[in-house]
Amino acid sequence: MMQIWNRALAALALVAAAVLASAVHAAPAHPADEDGYELWLRYRPLPQAHAPRWNTIVFDGAPSATVRAAIDELRRGAQGMTGKDLALGTRVTDGAVVLARAGKLPAGVDGAGLADLGREGYLLKSATVAGKRVTVIAANDDIGLLYGAFGLLRAANTGKPLDRLDERSAPKLQLRVLNHWDNLDRSVERGYAGQSIWNWWELPDVRDRRYVDYARANASLGINGTVLNNVNSKPEILTAPWIAKAAALADVLRPYGIKVYLSARFSTPLELKETKTADPLSPEVAAWWRNKADEIYRAIPDFGGFLVKANSEGQPGPQDYHRTHVDGANMLAAALAPHNGVVMWRAFVYAAEKPDDRAKQAYDEFKPLDGKFARNVLVQVKNGAIDFQPREPFHPLFGAMPATPLMMEFQITKEYLGFAMHMAYLGPLFEETLTSDTMRQPGGLTVAQVLEDAAHGKRPTGMAGVANVGSSRTWSGSHFDQANWYAYGRFAWDPQGSARAFAEEWATQTFARDPKAVQGIVDMMMMSREAVVNYMTPLGLHHLMDTGHHHGPGPWVDNLGRPDWNPTYYHKADRQGIGFDRTARGSNALAQYAPALAARWSDPRTTPPELLLWFHHLPWDYAMPSGRTLWAELVGHYDRGVAQAEELRTRWERMKPFVDARRYDEVRERLDVQVKEAHWWRDASVAYFQSVSGLALPPGARPPARSLDEYKAIRFPYAPGH
Amino acid sequence: MMQIWNRALAALALVAAAVLASAVHAAPAHPADEDGYELWLRYRPLPQAHAPRWNTIVFDGAPSATVRAAIDELRRGAQGMTGKDLALGTRVTDGAVVLARAGKLPAGVDGAGLADLGREGYLLKSATVAGKRVTVIAANDDIGLLYGAFGLLRAANTGKPLDRLDERSAPKLQLRVLNHWDNLDRSVERGYAGQSIWNWWELPDVRDRRYVDYARANASLGINGTVLNNVNSKPEILTAPWIAKAAALADVLRPYGIKVYLSARFSTPLELKETKTADPLSPEVAAWWRNKADEIYRAIPDFGGFLVKANSEGQPGPQDYHRTHVDGANMLAAALAPHNGVVMWRAFVYAAEKPDDRAKQAYDEFKPLDGKFARNVLVQVKNGAIDFQPREPFHPLFGAMPATPLMMEFQITKEYLGFAMHMAYLGPLFEETLTSDTMRQPGGLTVAQVLEDAAHGKRPTGMAGVANVGSSRTWSGSHFDQANWYAYGRFAWDPQGSARAFAEEWATQTFARDPKAVQGIVDMMMMSREAVVNYMTPLGLHHLMDTGHHHGPGPWVDNLGRPDWNPTYYHKADRQGIGFDRTARGSNALAQYAPALAARWSDPRTTPPELLLWFHHLPWDYAMPSGRTLWAELVGHYDRGVAQAEELRTRWERMKPFVDARRYDEVRERLDVQVKEAHWWRDASVAYFQSVSGLALPPGARPPARSLDEYKAIRFPYAPGH
Repeated sequence: MMQIWNRALAALALVAAAVLASAVHAAPAHPADEDGYELWLRYRPLPQAHAPRWNTIVFDGAPSATVRAAIDELRRGAQGMTGKDLALGTRVTDGAVVLARAGKLPAGVDGAGLADLGREGYLLKSATVAGKRVTVIAANDDIGLLYGAFGLLRAANTGKPLDRLDERSAPKLQLRVLNHWDNLDRSVERGYAGQSIWNWWELPDVRDRRYVDYARANASLGINGTVLNNVNSKPEILTAPWIAKAAALADVLRPYGIKVYLSARFSTPLELKETKTADPLSPEVAAWWRNKADEIYRAIPDFGGFLVKANSEGQPGPQDYHRTHVDGANMLAAALAPHNGVVMWRAFVYAAEKPDDRAKQAYDEFKPLDGKFARNVLVQVKNGAIDFQPREPFHPLFGAMPATPLMMEFQITKEYLGFAMHMAYLGPLFEETLTSDTMRQPGGLTVAQVLEDAAHGKRPTGMAGVANVGSSRTWSGSHFDQANWYAYGRFAWDPQGSARAFAEEWATQTFARDPKAVQGIVDMMMMSREAVVNYMTPLGLHHLMDTGHHHGPGPWVDNLGRPDWNPTYYHKADRQGIGFDRTARGSNALAQYAPALAARWSDPRTTPPELLLWFHHLPWDYAMPSGRTLWAELVGHYDRGVAQAEELRTRWERMKPFVDARRYDEVRERLDVQVKEAHWWRDASVAYFQSVSGLALPPGARPPARSLDEYKAIRFPYAPGH
Repeated sequence: MMQIWNRALAALALVAAAVLASAVHAAPAHPADEDGYELWLRYRPLPQAHAPRWNTIVFDGAPSATVRAAIDELRRGAQGMTGKDLALGTRVTDGAVVLARAGKLPAGVDGAGLADLGREGYLLKSATVAGKRVTVIAANDDIGLLYGAFGLLRAANTGKPLDRLDERSAPKLQLRVLNHWDNLDRSVERGYAGQSIWNWWELPDVRDRRYVDYARANASLGINGTVLNNVNSKPEILTAPWIAKAAALADVLRPYGIKVYLSARFSTPLELKETKTADPLSPEVAAWWRNKADEIYRAIPDFGGFLVKANSEGQPGPQDYHRTHVDGANMLAAALAPHNGVVMWRAFVYAAEKPDDRAKQAYDEFKPLDGKFARNVLVQVKNGAIDFQPREPFHPLFGAMPATPLMMEFQITKEYLGFAMHMAYLGPLFEETLTSDTMRQPGGLTVAQVLEDAAHGKRPTGMAGVANVGSSRTWSGSHFDQANWYAYGRFAWDPQGSARAFAEEWATQTFARDPKAVQGIVDMMMMSREAVVNYMTPLGLHHLMDTGHHHGPGPWVDNLGRPDWNPTYYHKADRQGIGFDRTARGSNALAQYAPALAARWSDPRTTPPELLLWFHHLPWDYAMPSGRTLWAELVGHYDRGVAQAEELRTRWERMKPFVDARRYDEVRERLDVQVKEAHWWRDASVAYFQSVSGLALPPGARPPARSLDEYKAIRFPYAPGH
């Protein structure tokens, strides 16, 4: 009898073991193939030692939609990381996760400092309540609880000790928004991740389930606004059918703390034939916009406001009526002010009348307007003065308009850094800009500090990122481009954050928790942008891409409609030398920077080598600090870029054991293309500059694989995003 | 001791039971949410009684890529339906699935009739081999084994008894192709399912994993060809970079028996500036195409051939040089013939010179060319003479060109039937056309028989379907539009198949196996197309849609560049009556049909009511068989269409218990839109025809909700697919 039982028991144990082996707790030997859709919110099973010991979620009261979102996410995370389905309760037990708003903190929990965290901040605390070990998420508002839930899940997912949490976090900028350059036909300007995720045609009736996942991803980073449509806007977006579509999206996004904004075309009322002019000082026009704002707010009570690209690249604007940016922005601001909406007025302007240096124009136009904008206007300034190049010095407007709220505009989509094909982690680019010292204050004033506007405090602050989100299954067109969305969101929350730290968080959550894998992947990410700079635009060169589509090299292009559309305008290479002289001897764009900085950068010897040719025109035989000539150094940088692209591929091969087969292969395919295109950029650029300089290649440098004419003949009539 | 053991055993049993409950065999009480990506290849767990008892796959020899695809699919299916991982072996065991080519059938298996099944046919047989019960898939070629594997999985998935299989199947048409109207910028003409699945930009380096799933879905239906690009073609598709992209796709699709074809623009060599003319009789031009064909076949050895839209809607063609369709087609055919490629030459032509009746033009142009095309040319004829309307009589060319291989062109994407928003199962439309009797032979000759070309047998046969496949997660833009892809593929395999039977197969595999669910869903599908006909174009009306985008009603449109682009041209409604007189008193298009049929349809009394106004112009007070006037009957049909749309929604609500929540909701959202738009079609059409007829609404008929001017003012500047 005993034997029979033993045998039955053994058999049953075998069954149970076999089944358990395939169940959720056991990490599979070979991770399943993944398609990237889950982003960094993957919540894979944690080893027992690090797994959270949560067993209930406690919330006292009727949960709002936002609190429900927090509860759902905690349950999803716990299910994924521990296999446990968390019940929702009101009684504190051992292992409870307590969501508590200020004033409702469990007795004995120290809520000190909570009041300073604002509406969106949160506390995470390990605590003992009535003898029970609990984890408290505390905030002043429901959105803080949601952000705290994501913060707690991130802590668990990245292996932080969960039994002695004591974290406080609050955003340093108020408006943390994505700018979608999404058109109404669902194409995306400079989009490399498929069509717009906004299925305008099916809205408002059909609400794609994906909108919720978009909201979750953004809320996990603290992104709290989204401009739905392209800055090159159309009048229809402000008509009733489209307001209804935007309202449907606003309804989906609202529980996640995300406000909807729209890009407004300045001439909208005129083009809709509802006014006779678009002059901002016309009472008819001002009334139209007031009525339009009222109409929008009836449909979207928490509408964020307007983003405006005016008098730039052919877009209409107040200057068409001999009015100023202030006239235009303040008219719109007056329409939005009763509803607490804002105007984000872009400073990216350049006009044909000022051909001496396009880099100077935004400053020239906007600096004189400092202090004249209405209180609910932010001036949105690109990180650099040209246009989202692989490297630019920080925009001279930062620090130069102390009486005006300036908002940063970064480009997350990689218009100039290899689209969604090249690996280029933008964290270092964001960090480089944000940590730049404007030298506008004694002791220093970084761009991040300008944005945070610590000196004033009462004015709106913000950061915008041109989204890289599309209908692609990976959202961003590639697995690694998801990291740029992530890093953007984290920097918008904390402009003084660290690119490497954000990369570590991202890689851990997205790919693998093994420290060897995280280290390997993060090292790749951290070198990747400099690789692109090296094989595309080293030593401060910029705007060398081919026309229109902006894919691939075109340093020879000199035949476009405006001088400052031509790469030759920017590199000014000739037999003697190369570079754009922006010193006092040249365009004197340097004078737009703080005097101490301008002085430093006026001398090529004290200009950082990576900005050298941005500010200086130098002879080919200029002696670089390395001792090599500028020509040799330039070719050396191109070669280094190619070597770095190859190094990325080699390093990825070492990651194979850590990554599921599908994502491994998909990244690998792209790295093959990157290596190929790095060679192309290097070879075409070297061939061209050699044809200009007439110099022999430095010793050991490989001749370009093809002739310059062959490179010039390459065409891309159907490139995406154009 | 015993007690301890017992308790341990009980505990372990509980664990095992709990784990098993969530494992693959137990059908979950609430089916998990699904996003539709798996199409009809879902392979959900089967109840024990119906589950296949397969345990190994036997194949003797080194499997080709095609056989590997068959084995992979069988393993995937078995894993899904039974939870069992099928090993691959060479020894026959009980429960083996034996893949065997002719000549290698296991001893004792009757392969009679296999030789008649051709390269693509297959046998499925339950058999006993050396005392073991096995399932045999037998075929003459590897592709037959793959088709057989899909056939076996379909049998299992639809609950057929698997222990007495005796099925033989072979395609009745040789070329079963999808026509992708996909542009090189990844937009899709008349595409309502997102961008093209061909990521041209990333090809050939990056091969989206989705291409394999596309191949699986098509192979499961027997589709064996795909025309990658739009019939409105561009010259670049035939340049080296694009041939490389097509070759990469061909490599992915080849194991699944799918050949790649390209749409060729007739003027390609001229536009590429590689010839001085595109005259098909120019030796220079013929040589260019020969060289081009050679170049393509070097990259794609099994390239299928060219699809050509020539001298139609502004496309270039041989008539530009005063040559004929035969001159053009045969010149291309000569270039392809050495490689066994074919030309699919479209008969969809209409020219401004013949304004009397556009419906007559294809016949007028092509009928005189019968017998003059080269042996590797098929003339591709749309199902009807106008353009994929909700209902058309069969095209008069079918049966009228006995000496020419005619290929059917159906439109799977629903350009004129509510895009991907309205439920309209096209099976009945396909079936209605295919079963139409051309009366060109004593005893009857159906369109299906014309396609199968039984009288000749030696010539190529085929069917084309304009694809509804895109990057949408559902592939087809909605869950139910997948059924149109499915039905198309099944009809291409067997033009004498049954729309209802295909709907049953599809619904069982796609949604639920419960007979109540299948019955309910199939009944919806079978009524859905007639609903659309009723609320859009009842009683033989056609071409009433609004301009350009083809969305929504526009019966009033009379201002377009050509008379035959205007809806008013087609309905000819005035104070007296409505309809297009195609009898001898009118355009006499009827004379293009067989005399007996023309005679029958010349009299409105013997014309089927559903084609009445296609052939006849009748007074508003014409007495219909119902006893009501034509006017009352017309309004009645519009009302019936609205009621049917509402009925679809009601019926779907009854399906809720059978369908996962996500797909239930997503279908429901669309049905809400369909009801709304059915009302819009009905109201706008009734308002317009009332304004023309001047008649009062029939008693009890509801007045339109809005004024005719309001309906006329509706605009869709950003509609998809246009």
